[in-house]
Amino acid sequence: MAEAAKKKKVIVIGGGFGGVFGAKTLEKLGRGRLDVELINRNNYFVFQPLLPEVAASTIHSADAVVPLRQLLRGVQVRLAEVMGIDFAAKTVTVVQGTRRAPVDLAYDELVIGLGTGVDLKRFPGLPEHALTMKDLADAHRLRTHVIGCLETADVTEDPDAKRQLLTFVVVGAGFSGVETVAELRELVRRALKYYTNIRPEEIRFYLIEYANRILPTFPADLAAYATRQLEKSGIEVMTGVGTKSATGAAVELADGRLISTSTIVATIGNGPHRLVEALGLDMKWGRIKTDRYMRVPGLDSVWALGDSALIPLVDAPGEDPAHYAPQTAQFAVREGRQLAANILAKIDGEALKHFAYTSKGALASLGMSKAIADVYGIKLSGFFAWLLWRGFYLSFLPGFAAKFRVGLSWLLNSVMPPNIVQIQSTPPATRYLYYRKGDKVFEPGMLIDGFYTVTKGTFWLTIDNPETGEHFEKVFGPGDHFGERVLIRTALRTGLVVALEDGILLFIAQKDFTRFARAFPFLENYFTDYIERTFGGTDKAFAPGSADRKTELETLP
Amino acid sequence: MAEAAKKKKVIVIGGGFGGVFGAKTLEKLGRGRLDVELINRNNYFVFQPLLPEVAASTIHSADAVVPLRQLLRGVQVRLAEVMGIDFAAKTVTVVQGTRRAPVDLAYDELVIGLGTGVDLKRFPGLPEHALTMKDLADAHRLRTHVIGCLETADVTEDPDAKRQLLTFVVVGAGFSGVETVAELRELVRRALKYYTNIRPEEIRFYLIEYANRILPTFPADLAAYATRQLEKSGIEVMTGVGTKSATGAAVELADGRLISTSTIVATIGNGPHRLVEALGLDMKWGRIKTDRYMRVPGLDSVWALGDSALIPLVDAPGEDPAHYAPQTAQFAVREGRQLAANILAKIDGEALKHFAYTSKGALASLGMSKAIADVYGIKLSGFFAWLLWRGFYLSFLPGFAAKFRVGLSWLLNSVMPPNIVQIQSTPPATRYLYYRKGDKVFEPGMLIDGFYTVTKGTFWLTIDNPETGEHFEKVFGPGDHFGERVLIRTALRTGLVVALEDGILLFIAQKDFTRFARAFPFLENYFTDYIERTFGGTDKAFAPGSADRKTELETLP
Repeated sequence: MAEAAKKKKVIVIGGGFGGVFGAKTLEKLGRGRLDVELINRNNYFVFQPLLPEVAASTIHSADAVVPLRQLLRGVQVRLAEVMGIDFAAKTVTVVQGTRRAPVDLAYDELVIGLGTGVDLKRFPGLPEHALTMKDLADAHRLRTHVIGCLETADVTEDPDAKRQLLTFVVVGAGFSGVETVAELRELVRRALKYYTNIRPEEIRFYLIEYANRILPTFPADLAAYATRQLEKSGIEVMTGVGTKSATGAAVELADGRLISTSTIVATIGNGPHRLVEALGLDMKWGRIKTDRYMRVPGLDSVWALGDSALIPLVDAPGEDPAHYAPQTAQFAVREGRQLAANILAKIDGEALKHFAYTSKGALASLGMSKAIADVYGIKLSGFFAWLLWRGFYLSFLPGFAAKFRVGLSWLLNSVMPPNIVQIQSTPPATRYLYYRKGDKVFEPGMLIDGFYTVTKGTFWLTIDNPETGEHFEKVFGPGDHFGERVLIRTALRTGLVVALEDGILLFIAQKDFTRFARAFPFLENYFTDYIERTFGGTDKAFAPGSADRKTELETLP
Repeated sequence: MAEAAKKKKVIVIGGGFGGVFGAKTLEKLGRGRLDVELINRNNYFVFQPLLPEVAASTIHSADAVVPLRQLLRGVQVRLAEVMGIDFAAKTVTVVQGTRRAPVDLAYDELVIGLGTGVDLKRFPGLPEHALTMKDLADAHRLRTHVIGCLETADVTEDPDAKRQLLTFVVVGAGFSGVETVAELRELVRRALKYYTNIRPEEIRFYLIEYANRILPTFPADLAAYATRQLEKSGIEVMTGVGTKSATGAAVELADGRLISTSTIVATIGNGPHRLVEALGLDMKWGRIKTDRYMRVPGLDSVWALGDSALIPLVDAPGEDPAHYAPQTAQFAVREGRQLAANILAKIDGEALKHFAYTSKGALASLGMSKAIADVYGIKLSGFFAWLLWRGFYLSFLPGFAAKFRVGLSWLLNSVMPPNIVQIQSTPPATRYLYYRKGDKVFEPGMLIDGFYTVTKGTFWLTIDNPETGEHFEKVFGPGDHFGERVLIRTALRTGLVVALEDGILLFIAQKDFTRFARAFPFLENYFTDYIERTFGGTDKAFAPGSADRKTELETLP
């Protein structure tokens, strides 16, 4: 065969279920004839169904993922970020490593399996204040956050702060939402014996769902069973209610109710992947339209699969979602295999095959050794369904090492104490913060930890010196700033700042702001002048409590 | 007894070996009579000797640590940062949780066990570019970094970059340095089969030691054995040579040699803990002077132990380090127990006891199932010493759950594939970068990823447009800045920036810089003017390659 002389290069973008099983099958079927390369942002494959267990410490972070290089022997794995694709020149431009110089990679066949992104923009404050559950970092962040809430709740003497810290809200009651709230409930329940100042009745869990029932893909009776189980374990399930907005201290529901909480997990808002959106392809519902062979129409040698693709299951698909392959791992795996076969058929000049598959069912864990299952048309619930859930995922998890480690963790988890180690990470240096009208940004006595500029809305500062009776006040609008005294000393806030209307602040952490201002003489001068001009006459208003509490500023290198 | 009526409050600051064993013993001996509280920055105790194994993926991060609340049942554990101590008022001021309002805690007896900090300021560039091995986050960072080097080396086509990525330098050949370099060597050796484009002979390991031999606390013959073993496994051991400076691309030795590397691990530079330094106590060698009972002289009810304390072992201690308790875990544990007994003796009006202990010996692992041991005067080396090393640390590790998990990891590690999962974290938004004269900061074709201001030294920018023949150049000194075009678009560098002398830049990541400038109208105007004023006439010089590669900037909330 002529093809044997020159190997064809197949590039697969994305290391999810579709991309990994596609690349694996391409390598197997095309050995010696294809050069298969998989490009991914992380060097591991994430077994999404186990992320809630990572968030709950049931299994180690590293055990819910499998290194791509171990999974895909024979495939070139490239840890890189895709910047763009030139469909005419048939190249993918990537950035990799520390040198950050783009590299162009040529392909003969290209498979796009980038998955979806999260788009919470419709809900003001949710993108900034909600945690998500898409990847390993998310699960890790949620776990760290929840343990942090328990740690602070155990030592705080402020009852409002305690209630807020011990209220956990999960928005969206699909698979991910239900399993996340159930697993978090388990973590908190098991951890509680180590937090002796927290009483079980002080803890609240909410599961908020816009639709009228949870788990829409399950039969109604199983979903009702799931609701009862969740409620039995102390989770308040609220259906038929939308989420409106969020701040760092509360979530607001569409019906006006306000739940005071430090923890909002959003499992809603699937949107197109940023890169997929930028490619300029023909899209529908945020997904790349393909033909029944998973080819992208109008392009030479470009294929798409998984959650980022809209693959028709019928010849003339319309507006009915059932006309297309659903966005599940089960389908993505079969898409990957079929797509690989189609690429080889194309190379060999043989007939391509339509993608066709029927779901074998679904399983969802509810915590407390309970689950629901709807497999091959048989409905199960309770402990046996839970065993089935564990068995199924264990068998589905790729690689022996991963199976072994997860199985062992499950086994040990029942006899070992819960893992409440909190591995903290530095919060981002700059972040947008949402406030509702009337919310306090800070109040006297708090530590000065950063600098604020107003992005939207108006904020009101008042400083009262109880000793001198002096009073100072100022209203800040967009482009205005406050908190710049952080440049002079780290001390305690003497003023109170309140949002006069709903608004947004950009927060810049003290260390980064100080470094920036110091490196930049004109900026430091601006702030020194500004502080003198604005607060010069009321310097005494700053006095109480601030003098003897200053901590060291960083020494310049 | 009168004391039984009112419990005494004992606060222990610091959750290392000294603090934990002190608090544990206080709780045990003083049950019902003492309220014991331990304050720590993390909610876990770090088993320091296992950190190199965490860096090498031999054991999971969470297994080298034990949650303080599990270890210290009956002790109030407070996750907080200590801001200051008022020895006269007998209060400790802490900041905890998200509200960041300082809280004052009253004590009857105070134990300071804060350990030491790292001070690398004597070595320009080392604080900014070296990784350290003090806590769990460090071990985790090192592991992520080393796997990242392998990932990039596997796909880069630049031989210089590849050599730099595959050269690993550990500075300091005490316990920590030797075990770290040995464990990293193991990780890389085992991981290599998954990185098919890397040949074993492309990898270099260096262990740099200022003294004339490694492991100064061991007998010379054992240290010589260790050197031979390390060299046999491919590590170049360089003794009698100091480290001078470091950049992101190389480490410079005192004799002028330059080693091109992306990975510098510094296990040197023990300095006083920041808070200990700020307390204003009588210090020597960066440690708090105590009497033989571990009391801090001149203060009422203040005690110190562990690495942060200088505890005399003789009555009239002088300049000989042997007159004081060494900074080892073995001593800290005994100090904790004795200190607890002394506090109870004080309360009961009984006689205090001097701290006295003789080291039982030392063990160091060399990788490849080899170790050296010097216990009870018996010297061992090789496999048997390694078994002893493992057995000793397993027995020393507090808590059954931790012992079990570490033991199991060791067992499985020999049969399971190495864990090469790289869990990335975002690098800090602002960072100082060192450059040696002649170093390139960036060159044409690199991605614009941030903004630079000059903190020290001078830097030279040249832009050449091959199409128009246009040439632009500019020299930047302290307070000057470059890279501000990041505000307009993310594109490729068109200029070359070179350090004209040794210098320091403050780097600000694109996302954070852009957010800051946008939120702040006067700053955005300044940069727009600056770009027009400085580069306005040579706009074409920016053209090549930059137009069609722009990526999306963040949309404002």
